[in-house]
Amino acid sequence: MGVIPTALSLFVLGPSGTNSHEAAKKFTQGLYYRYEINFCRTNREVLESCLKGGMGVVPIENGSAGYVGEVIKFWLSQKYSSLLKVIGEMTLPISHHLIVRSSVKSVEEIKEIISHPHALEQCTQFLQKLNVRTIPAASTAEAARQVSQSRTHRKAAIASIFAARTFGLKILRQKIENSPDNATCFHLVGHSISLPTGKDKTAVLFRLPGKENKYGSLLDALSVLKEEKVNMSRIHSIPLGTLGSYAFYCEFDCHSEDKSGKRIIEKLKKESENELLLLGSFPRFCERKEGEK
Amino acid sequence: MGVIPTALSLFVLGPSGTNSHEAAKKFTQGLYYRYEINFCRTNREVLESCLKGGMGVVPIENGSAGYVGEVIKFWLSQKYSSLLKVIGEMTLPISHHLIVRSSVKSVEEIKEIISHPHALEQCTQFLQKLNVRTIPAASTAEAARQVSQSRTHRKAAIASIFAARTFGLKILRQKIENSPDNATCFHLVGHSISLPTGKDKTAVLFRLPGKENKYGSLLDALSVLKEEKVNMSRIHSIPLGTLGSYAFYCEFDCHSEDKSGKRIIEKLKKESENELLLLGSFPRFCERKEGEK
Repeated sequence: MGVIPTALSLFVLGPSGTNSHEAAKKFTQGLYYRYEINFCRTNREVLESCLKGGMGVVPIENGSAGYVGEVIKFWLSQKYSSLLKVIGEMTLPISHHLIVRSSVKSVEEIKEIISHPHALEQCTQFLQKLNVRTIPAASTAEAARQVSQSRTHRKAAIASIFAARTFGLKILRQKIENSPDNATCFHLVGHSISLPTGKDKTAVLFRLPGKENKYGSLLDALSVLKEEKVNMSRIHSIPLGTLGSYAFYCEFDCHSEDKSGKRIIEKLKKESENELLLLGSFPRFCERKEGEK
Repeated sequence: MGVIPTALSLFVLGPSGTNSHEAAKKFTQGLYYRYEINFCRTNREVLESCLKGGMGVVPIENGSAGYVGEVIKFWLSQKYSSLLKVIGEMTLPISHHLIVRSSVKSVEEIKEIISHPHALEQCTQFLQKLNVRTIPAASTAEAARQVSQSRTHRKAAIASIFAARTFGLKILRQKIENSPDNATCFHLVGHSISLPTGKDKTAVLFRLPGKENKYGSLLDALSVLKEEKVNMSRIHSIPLGTLGSYAFYCEFDCHSEDKSGKRIIEKLKKESENELLLLGSFPRFCERKEGEK
């Protein structure tokens, strides 16, 4: 006899307070059933946990760093066949803030700033003006956790508002990143399918075996999008370990169950000799900039 | 009165013994003039030094890690106009070896393995079988340098044969990487131009301003390659800091001074509203797999 689950398992990168956690919270605003958030140590662990059941949230692309290799590599490891599907996407604006314990009054008190190395890198202009030591942490949420548990006024973290709230910390300086307008696109994955809404997007991953260097093979494969008058919103060459050998991650603006979508998938399957993984079709969100709130 | 240079300056990532240094050595086998290798701390410093005169060698793509963001970002910072040009390319097979001081006889003596985090990551299967501590270093060459200066038998480095030779070390285990066939493609940059040889390649970087989300804009721009029957050997979407906004790095198989090349550049310039940087044209090497010795 199986165990009847009382709540849906939702897997995200931990600890509590990560950007993935914030994205998961936003995704679940639209859910009508109970869920339970499970924190994983890596994004790969999030996806592997989902394979056994439940849903998950993973980043797929950041405006500065590009596609998330760890997540794409998981999809590649599925050997062009997976029961797991992408069923939604969401954009989260990424801003970095200087966060401290509530008793800290001024930046001058701070001697050490803790954060993820990527966040430290994205705030170099702010950091150059201070005379502080920077200390790397596994994530911005982990940095916030460390500050919340420290007993001195000397430590601050660079992290999100969500992390500050999660650990009861105060924002001392807002938006300290070098370039504003950064954002990350997240995927919601699970075992269901999103039905067509008329404003959808499809994500696929494919290889062009034996054709890497043949005349215009990628352009040939993608010409079907032009024939169907369907926009391509993303294309990434994913290195496969041998120089000049790639898989392609591609998103285009229709549902795989639309008439156009069906013809596109059929053509891409043929060109890729069935080495195509349909990650999923889902309502468009990440390119719709007016909705980035 | 200016100073008359007695030798050409060739800038590469240091310290002595890096993969860039090895690539530079191979490039200079064909040079008939004297040169002097200058080591820089970063690839960006290599390119900035070249801007003032001299030549340089930088990695552009690795078979596992993909394009080299630091180098592409330098080209983007040139604002679609640069006096510096790519004048050659070369593939270097990337293998990792366990290297030790000559008096070390067996793997059992080793307690600490030093290397660049990427190299440690690429050798996990080998490392799992040992009971050792791993220690990160700034580069594989730096790891080799540290081993050469240590006085114990406990330390080993993961690095290239070239690094072992540079520091007078011994190879204890060959090719310990998880997946063989990895390689890196390097560019030779300078202030001259490579003349057409009949087997050339051109590298460009361009934006499609205001068209990021218009129907098939990238495919439209690249359709000129199909019209001219010219193969595209590489395409990478380079994130520009705002989600969904990219530059494109593209290589295609002809010289920019060929008839086809001229028409392709003209079309891409138009489509990109002159936000196109011609990195250079040079003899093909990186895709010619039979020449990867």
